[in-house]
Amino acid sequence: MTKNIPVLKGITHANEMLADALRKQFNQHRVLVLDIIASPGAGKTTIIEKTIAGLHDELRLMVIEGDPTTSIDAERVSAAGVPAVQINTGGGCHLEAHMIQISLQQLDLSEADVVIIENVGNLMCPTDWDLGEDMKVVVASLPEGDDKPLKYPLSFQAADAVVVNKIDLEPYLPASTQKMRENTLTINPNAALFAVSAITGEGFEPWLEWIKEKLAEKRASLDSAST
Amino acid sequence: MTKNIPVLKGITHANEMLADALRKQFNQHRVLVLDIIASPGAGKTTIIEKTIAGLHDELRLMVIEGDPTTSIDAERVSAAGVPAVQINTGGGCHLEAHMIQISLQQLDLSEADVVIIENVGNLMCPTDWDLGEDMKVVVASLPEGDDKPLKYPLSFQAADAVVVNKIDLEPYLPASTQKMRENTLTINPNAALFAVSAITGEGFEPWLEWIKEKLAEKRASLDSAST
Repeated sequence: MTKNIPVLKGITHANEMLADALRKQFNQHRVLVLDIIASPGAGKTTIIEKTIAGLHDELRLMVIEGDPTTSIDAERVSAAGVPAVQINTGGGCHLEAHMIQISLQQLDLSEADVVIIENVGNLMCPTDWDLGEDMKVVVASLPEGDDKPLKYPLSFQAADAVVVNKIDLEPYLPASTQKMRENTLTINPNAALFAVSAITGEGFEPWLEWIKEKLAEKRASLDSAST
Repeated sequence: MTKNIPVLKGITHANEMLADALRKQFNQHRVLVLDIIASPGAGKTTIIEKTIAGLHDELRLMVIEGDPTTSIDAERVSAAGVPAVQINTGGGCHLEAHMIQISLQQLDLSEADVVIIENVGNLMCPTDWDLGEDMKVVVASLPEGDDKPLKYPLSFQAADAVVVNKIDLEPYLPASTQKMRENTLTINPNAALFAVSAITGEGFEPWLEWIKEKLAEKRASLDSAST
């Protein structure tokens, strides 16, 4: 009789096992975890700053920032008043579960309600890497064009929510928010959809409500599983 | 005495050997090859369309389009009146030399002066993959923010030219073209710099001149090497 030897099927399988351990840890602390994915310059950090400002009075937020180099983003988020950790990937185009594991040594999850992970600016690579998150959120910037869901379908398919940002620029663009919505729903009919301007704050209320709802749903589900 | 056995040092080494073979082939045909790298939605295809319109009377252009899925871009470029091939990478975040090799079966290089390769929309992954090109061109869209050269330095460092696009939106953005120029030159003092709007056509003349210059320089250099 052969012993059951665990076999890691390549690097993504090792990542999945570690992500499952992270998920357990997040569940223990009853924390909602969002993984924010977008192209460079889509406005992820500004959205996180505005989200902190909008939820700060009600929820305890923490942020894990992923970037190839620099700690510009963690400094911005930290200035917004929440605990933040910066991960520099070097040339790496996505975060991996082991990076999240290490960054958690710097964060006390018992003091958190929501952890926001800002992934490296990249609309493709981060999609396949489970970080133990509850929700994947794709930010699509309107100036990138309303055809992006069709051209980069995998990340939009994987998204629980899509935040269309920079809608204040619509009058000056060939792209339309309505078309971006339609193309997103063509690729992923189940995505929660938000249209915002992180600069003006327009459209943030439904997005903030969605985060609160998802946290409440997660906690209710954990409670019903434990009874 | 051991025989000299060629060892491929991983997939990028195999890619480099193939890229060298492509480079020889491009040189034989006296063709200038540009590899265009940018985030999704930075305006690569629109820049290529406008470049075709600007150079069509003087030079014979061909385009190789890289995308995760869809042939939208090759159709646009083909409609602009030049031979075009579409490469779909599936989930792959960059083009590789073997993809270029296969696509050349569809293009008659003896009928070309300039080949433009539009890489997959990704500001990180394509940088390390040699395609046998003469020049790497990074397109940076102003709405992405003027801090992008600092945050994604590797692609800007590798660029022979940087085209700042969508400058027509500057009045409505927190970003500035001047700051984008400064940040680009901080990261790469040798980059040729262009500021354009692919929608309005503003700023295209120096960019078109640069392509013509680089073609003339390459041909002069090939001539002097062969005498």
